[in-house]
Amino acid sequence: MTGDRPSEDDLIARYFAPLAGAGGLGLRDDAARIAPPEGCEIVLTVDGLVAGVHFFADDPPAAIAKKALRVNLSDLAAKGAAPLGFLLTLALPRDWRADWLELFARGLGEDAAAFACPLLGGDTVSTFGPLTLSITALGAVPAGRMVPRDGARAGDLLYVSGTIGDAALGLRERSAGLRSRSEPEGPRSDAAILIDRYLAPQPRLALAEVLREHASGAMDVSDGLVGDLAKMLRVCGASADVAVARIPLSASAQTVIAADPRLLETALTGGDDYEILASVPIANARAFEAAATAVGVPVTRIGNVTPGHAPATFRDARGAPMSFARGSYSHF
Amino acid sequence: MTGDRPSEDDLIARYFAPLAGAGGLGLRDDAARIAPPEGCEIVLTVDGLVAGVHFFADDPPAAIAKKALRVNLSDLAAKGAAPLGFLLTLALPRDWRADWLELFARGLGEDAAAFACPLLGGDTVSTFGPLTLSITALGAVPAGRMVPRDGARAGDLLYVSGTIGDAALGLRERSAGLRSRSEPEGPRSDAAILIDRYLAPQPRLALAEVLREHASGAMDVSDGLVGDLAKMLRVCGASADVAVARIPLSASAQTVIAADPRLLETALTGGDDYEILASVPIANARAFEAAATAVGVPVTRIGNVTPGHAPATFRDARGAPMSFARGSYSHF
Repeated sequence: MTGDRPSEDDLIARYFAPLAGAGGLGLRDDAARIAPPEGCEIVLTVDGLVAGVHFFADDPPAAIAKKALRVNLSDLAAKGAAPLGFLLTLALPRDWRADWLELFARGLGEDAAAFACPLLGGDTVSTFGPLTLSITALGAVPAGRMVPRDGARAGDLLYVSGTIGDAALGLRERSAGLRSRSEPEGPRSDAAILIDRYLAPQPRLALAEVLREHASGAMDVSDGLVGDLAKMLRVCGASADVAVARIPLSASAQTVIAADPRLLETALTGGDDYEILASVPIANARAFEAAATAVGVPVTRIGNVTPGHAPATFRDARGAPMSFARGSYSHF
Repeated sequence: MTGDRPSEDDLIARYFAPLAGAGGLGLRDDAARIAPPEGCEIVLTVDGLVAGVHFFADDPPAAIAKKALRVNLSDLAAKGAAPLGFLLTLALPRDWRADWLELFARGLGEDAAAFACPLLGGDTVSTFGPLTLSITALGAVPAGRMVPRDGARAGDLLYVSGTIGDAALGLRERSAGLRSRSEPEGPRSDAAILIDRYLAPQPRLALAEVLREHASGAMDVSDGLVGDLAKMLRVCGASADVAVARIPLSASAQTVIAADPRLLETALTGGDDYEILASVPIANARAFEAAATAVGVPVTRIGNVTPGHAPATFRDARGAPMSFARGSYSHF
């Protein structure tokens, strides 16, 4: 099963060197080098992913690779940054196979190219435990213009990009044993659509400049909207009022929730959305919406930032506050 | 056993936020930001470490933290870079304890301060497997002055810093069950000295500028001198002639090898030295030696770079080529 496995050097040369950007020096040196574009500073983010915690060990290798890169690109987008490159630490279980690694590297290379985010360096080690990845992504923002998490002020409007909850609902389907990728041809089921949203987050890089120009603050939604909004408000020293009926849900999510209304809580508190949560001063709201539309990213106003230090109030269609048993998904 | 365990946010605030540098934004944002000093570019390196592969799970937590940072600082030193900061991914086994983490963070903070390399960001996740760390370190070099791995040319002299083989011999002692830290007071045994070299590598940051000024190429010795020299020569398209009698050994290593001469091979092919291997043009040799002495780092000329593409020839005291059963230690 483990025949034809290359050495570490061969593995790097064969699978990863083709993904290297100029600063990666062909992965033949001990380090990468990079300079930010003129007038820019570097934004850095890192995310670790562990099989059995953040993804299923039998997820398609390319999907695992892409998700690991995309969750970092999502952070760069939320900070208003454009990708510069990334470094990868890959801890491979003892029974890794060359064909698995080839598919992993191919998927990673596709996304590195698609998002103009080349590989700069990495380290490949073995582990007695589950497959474990860590990606450090670098982006560039004009100096001093990184979009902060803590910029929301009372009176600002709250927006989210895309739709919320699909990935959490997809994870639920995936946990029940379904796999979208092995579905038969034809129109995809709601379950398949939701699972794909879990497997393949879409980093909102197109919003980066829009956020820099118009938002007071932003973060990406990775641990559920309810919990991540609470985190944002905590660092801002503010509260918020959110109209749950305004929170954008995909048609598939609406169908699934209509069949079991308790899943609304899953959608709002589950993780893996990788959409953008932004606070926008009222004076910028129209321009923000227009700019987002111009770059093709749907954004929806879901509420207002309010004074105070309490967690956000989520109101149902009648205006009554809702409560959630679980505030936030934690990968920890 | 796992009582009093903080949440991820509390854990970051309690243990890691105190280590954050200015660019780390108090670890309260999704990303860090950094700009290289005027006229400099950024050097990046990443190393993953897994319990049971790169260290013992029951090594002192502070030693694990320090080693993880230092192996990266060693790479920066070899590239001629000064530390700017680092990002940490920490995958904690399910049974992690708050007291372990406190000691880990304290050790990490001590080294972050000692080496002027603050924490810029990180991610803490849980794993069903062994403790796993990944550190991405950032350094600064004057633009275009990173010391390459592939700069050695036929005629250059080969140097190493410090002494070679201590850590590999220390690992052997450690594997036999000894622990230097629990030794009784008094003069340390050779075993204890060697184990400390395994547990606590000393990154040669003092050599960074010396290498930039005088070396044609450099790398750090992490997988054994024999194997790492082979890697360096491969990317240079050169060969080398090394006098084994010139390779600097500590008094403790000499004692251990005298008792069992077969351990010379362990010293030269085992890993974890974290000394610098440098190629230096003959015209720079005196200045290189003087500058290294001035910054307090011993360097020893061990051989010459020669034309050709063959691996280096290691010659014994009579000039006869030696052969090694194992060329390189691989953590992979």
